[in-house]
Amino acid sequence: MNADKIPDIIIGRLPVYLRALQRMSEKGMKTTSSQELGDYVGISAAQIRKDISQFGEFGKQGTGYSIPFLIEKLREILKVNQMWDMVVVGVGDVGRALARYGGFAERGFRVAMIFDADPSKIGQKVGEFTIEDASDLIERVRAAKIRLAMVAVPASAAQAVADMLVQAGIKAIVNYAPTVLSVPSGIHVQHIDPSAHLQRMTYYLNGSVVAAQARVPVR
Amino acid sequence: MNADKIPDIIIGRLPVYLRALQRMSEKGMKTTSSQELGDYVGISAAQIRKDISQFGEFGKQGTGYSIPFLIEKLREILKVNQMWDMVVVGVGDVGRALARYGGFAERGFRVAMIFDADPSKIGQKVGEFTIEDASDLIERVRAAKIRLAMVAVPASAAQAVADMLVQAGIKAIVNYAPTVLSVPSGIHVQHIDPSAHLQRMTYYLNGSVVAAQARVPVR
Repeated sequence: MNADKIPDIIIGRLPVYLRALQRMSEKGMKTTSSQELGDYVGISAAQIRKDISQFGEFGKQGTGYSIPFLIEKLREILKVNQMWDMVVVGVGDVGRALARYGGFAERGFRVAMIFDADPSKIGQKVGEFTIEDASDLIERVRAAKIRLAMVAVPASAAQAVADMLVQAGIKAIVNYAPTVLSVPSGIHVQHIDPSAHLQRMTYYLNGSVVAAQARVPVR
Repeated sequence: MNADKIPDIIIGRLPVYLRALQRMSEKGMKTTSSQELGDYVGISAAQIRKDISQFGEFGKQGTGYSIPFLIEKLREILKVNQMWDMVVVGVGDVGRALARYGGFAERGFRVAMIFDADPSKIGQKVGEFTIEDASDLIERVRAAKIRLAMVAVPASAAQAVADMLVQAGIKAIVNYAPTVLSVPSGIHVQHIDPSAHLQRMTYYLNGSVVAAQARVPVR
């Protein structure tokens, strides 16, 4: 198994499978089929079999997949069979939500520190965290050997923050700022973009005659 | 062109192309190639050509794509050459961020109303909006013929909210709650899940020897 040889599009689907399998497991299910998993996540059974088979023979003809086994394998493949520390930069509405969010641990992540550049915020508490001064970011993140960051600053500040994070040794960034971040090769960025999710759905809303008639085109 | 025949995986990439093309356009660029667009979004040039060709012949051999033309075509295909009203349910940190976010309009969306069930929040202002009583949601959304919703309530409340939204005539939901929503067929749901984005990146962090050694596996 060579990381460079598996298309990123496939890697991007594995967390979706893992999330679904974890929900199934919570419901007490022990086995599933590519068909059932496919119905759950909205991806074809054939695609799921093809994706998973890239990493080995994890299912059995006729009996399907063992859910605990496939969860274990996917956690190994995605390297979330360990806990990853993260830093959150920008403590506005989104940063605050991330700092308070209780669901990261079961997925392999925990917020370790939060930063903001606003002097009126520095020193304030958010949940269990104290907001730290962004000017200490590089030193603090480097010392703690943190590799993951979530950027929740305004678009105008995002690139400068990304540059600092790269300097601090961060290798992967989840970007909530509505702007494209330019980073050196080898640094990964994922953009959280609700508009893209919305657009993926409006495509299907051609049946919605009322909406089509009621709206004025904006060109 | 038949909506049922194009795989959803391709539809999901179109908003990413559109976003990149809009950024290129903002920079004053007039044309691009599948190679250049591919480098920008991290998808192979061959994949981009294949995806776009599903909808027609939008590029020219040798000269590539006209950016304004391709933007126009993608906006048509995704039906965001019109403005879509949205409702936000749940005005915690995330709902507040969505209500205040200024970037929806250029992507084809606008928040029209916001709701919460907490009596201490109802009537409060968030940006230009007044938080409305969730018990009026079905009537208000139905009367306004809104088709899109963003759910930012706790996981425990999310399914009940989704049920109300479906009753109100909502056809597409962006779900920020960390839970799977069960909806009738024909209703679209997109899950915003930062952990899935993180997991897609930790896959690649095998080079990160320090991280691998420093962390204690949790099993």
